[in-house]
Amino acid sequence: MALIVQKYGGTSVGTPERIRNCARRILESQRAGNQVVAVVSAMSGVTDNLIKLAREVSPNQDPAEREMDVLLATGEQTTIALTAMAINDLGGKAVSLTGAQAGISTDKVHTKARIVNITPKAVKQMLDEGNIVMLAGFQGQTAGGEITTLGRGGSDLTAIAMAGAIQADLCQIFTDVDGVYTCDPRVVPTATKIPEISYDEMLEMASSGSKVMQSRSVEFAKKFGVRFEVRNSMNHNPGTIVKEENKGMESVVVRGVSIERNQAKVTIDDVPDRPGVSAAIFGAISKANIMVDMIVQNVSTDGLTDISFTLSTADLPKAESALRSVLVSLGEKAALRTQTGVAKLSVVGIGMRSHSGVAARMFAALSEAGINIQMISTSEIKVAVTVEEALIEKAARAVHTAFDLDDKASA
Amino acid sequence: MALIVQKYGGTSVGTPERIRNCARRILESQRAGNQVVAVVSAMSGVTDNLIKLAREVSPNQDPAEREMDVLLATGEQTTIALTAMAINDLGGKAVSLTGAQAGISTDKVHTKARIVNITPKAVKQMLDEGNIVMLAGFQGQTAGGEITTLGRGGSDLTAIAMAGAIQADLCQIFTDVDGVYTCDPRVVPTATKIPEISYDEMLEMASSGSKVMQSRSVEFAKKFGVRFEVRNSMNHNPGTIVKEENKGMESVVVRGVSIERNQAKVTIDDVPDRPGVSAAIFGAISKANIMVDMIVQNVSTDGLTDISFTLSTADLPKAESALRSVLVSLGEKAALRTQTGVAKLSVVGIGMRSHSGVAARMFAALSEAGINIQMISTSEIKVAVTVEEALIEKAARAVHTAFDLDDKASA
Repeated sequence: MALIVQKYGGTSVGTPERIRNCARRILESQRAGNQVVAVVSAMSGVTDNLIKLAREVSPNQDPAEREMDVLLATGEQTTIALTAMAINDLGGKAVSLTGAQAGISTDKVHTKARIVNITPKAVKQMLDEGNIVMLAGFQGQTAGGEITTLGRGGSDLTAIAMAGAIQADLCQIFTDVDGVYTCDPRVVPTATKIPEISYDEMLEMASSGSKVMQSRSVEFAKKFGVRFEVRNSMNHNPGTIVKEENKGMESVVVRGVSIERNQAKVTIDDVPDRPGVSAAIFGAISKANIMVDMIVQNVSTDGLTDISFTLSTADLPKAESALRSVLVSLGEKAALRTQTGVAKLSVVGIGMRSHSGVAARMFAALSEAGINIQMISTSEIKVAVTVEEALIEKAARAVHTAFDLDDKASA
Repeated sequence: MALIVQKYGGTSVGTPERIRNCARRILESQRAGNQVVAVVSAMSGVTDNLIKLAREVSPNQDPAEREMDVLLATGEQTTIALTAMAINDLGGKAVSLTGAQAGISTDKVHTKARIVNITPKAVKQMLDEGNIVMLAGFQGQTAGGEITTLGRGGSDLTAIAMAGAIQADLCQIFTDVDGVYTCDPRVVPTATKIPEISYDEMLEMASSGSKVMQSRSVEFAKKFGVRFEVRNSMNHNPGTIVKEENKGMESVVVRGVSIERNQAKVTIDDVPDRPGVSAAIFGAISKANIMVDMIVQNVSTDGLTDISFTLSTADLPKAESALRSVLVSLGEKAALRTQTGVAKLSVVGIGMRSHSGVAARMFAALSEAGINIQMISTSEIKVAVTVEEALIEKAARAVHTAFDLDDKASA
């Protein structure tokens, strides 16, 4: 008998019929001889509708985050009750638990709280009494008894954290794809599903545009050593197992290729090459709540240098206005240049640590395909470049082939 | 500075705009120099929609009551958050509390739990910090941390119980009428609002068809001596104060006249006048979950008697089938007769205890109006009769006038 934590997203529980399908799947897992805790999100659309209501009652200011949490937590509470009912109706035995009832303690940072502790006493007791436990994702409770929510990707986090707390044998994150692929199959038709991937690779893939999961859930899993599987709720195919790295994993040089579109490039030319310049630039950007991605600084010439970075195109206007205010402090010659229509291509793999020539092989593949590289940035297990957005699919296919990732069966 | 508990029903918070109106009203009460706890129900329609969803996911059996409570409690949780947001948006300072957070402890009887204890520590602290407290009606928590709901009229009960627990100076139940009337103004245009009424009179009015509030909330208020006011959320007119009786109240013989339509009469003729007969009849009725109202047994003749009672017309088929099964045990001659198209007319007043002739005056008024009385039943502070349903309005007006209840201004 194994102890399994499963997680189903908002689409999987989006209608009463889908809730019943989900219930069948959960019950099936229990009837195969396992103890099951199933984490669910709010029914798709429900959270957006609650946010809309909040804006309608509070047209003049952002609603207090404490109250947003009280409001949004109702979404998952609704789903756990309905799914428990569906399981009971199908002949099973289920009970629901809110985050607070399940002993999920968080800090006080409303709307993006961190889990600080889990006391899984109620969960364990209910499992031992033969129940399927339906656990509300995305929510917890402070030490003072206030309702909190965990922010984006919060239900994945609930599942992984609970799996760690009860030392589950398996944590299954159900989604609408079969797992993590070597590249987006809509872009590279020869992409294959990755059977196993390390936490670090998964993190780099996530931060490079492969949005199967939010980084924070993967980071949490890594920190507490929780192995989990990303799999499809619509079929029974094995998924991708995300786990600690092992020797065998290093034999593969590149685990996957990820792409991120809708990027913009900001360059500040001719700034003095002295301490405090970068701090001034990125301090201003950070204050405007903008996430930057690749940052590249060239070697200086005549005491002047250029600093470039990428960001989401949607954030470009905010970034421009934030930078204009600090530009005067960056010397007389400092000038701002921006470019949209940029995309990012990354190759990721822990094998890079022990294999040389990864960057060279990537650049050669792009060159052969006639694609110009705009910026380059590397980390220990990733090489990322930006290219013209119109060429990103061609670039992805070329690099995917160069690293021998194409599906052998379809080749 | 007074401490006030207010309660707003589902219609008052039925749309974002109404929530804002409600918020204005609550804020106005605070700005008049008071501390305010406001209890709200689920937005109208929300509870019905949740029940519909529950039926859809559980088509084969009634959903577990534990899960119904988890589900339905989200309705009020949504409203408290939205109303708190609206108050904040209007420049006030509000926090929301669920039943559990507010320390409302109940027994374990899901879907119709009773409040066993209130620990209003959080409520008091939040009030002392200058907040308006938005409290979820209709819900509580068991000692074991399970979510419970209080059943019909639960939000009124929450308000009255909390008012008792924090020793509020005032408890205001807002509704869509100006208060309790001497009779339904749609039936008796000369009916007037009653400024003060005793708990017992309110209870008899409620059980006689004046459905301003559920009896259990009034009973709770009586038991714990919580004085409350029923008033209109749409205007600022003073309402009806419901309170312990006092000497002055007795000077009014009849406080009000109430009517209840859609009644049916069941008579079992010629049953033996011996112990156990009534028990057999009403045992069967009770087992079928039917509420009976007036019960009348005639004096026996030749060892045989007739037993009659009234019930809601909707319950008549269920009652007939329940009775047929016991009829054989009631002797050879026992026969069942039913009649629909019956209505009940009651006069209520604690003044009856010290004034004789109330029944006689009522019967005379009906007789003068040419209305035949079918059944009579009396209690210490009520005289109730049934009449043909088509004549109920005429009967109500005649009795209302006979007890000098007509509005002097419009007379």
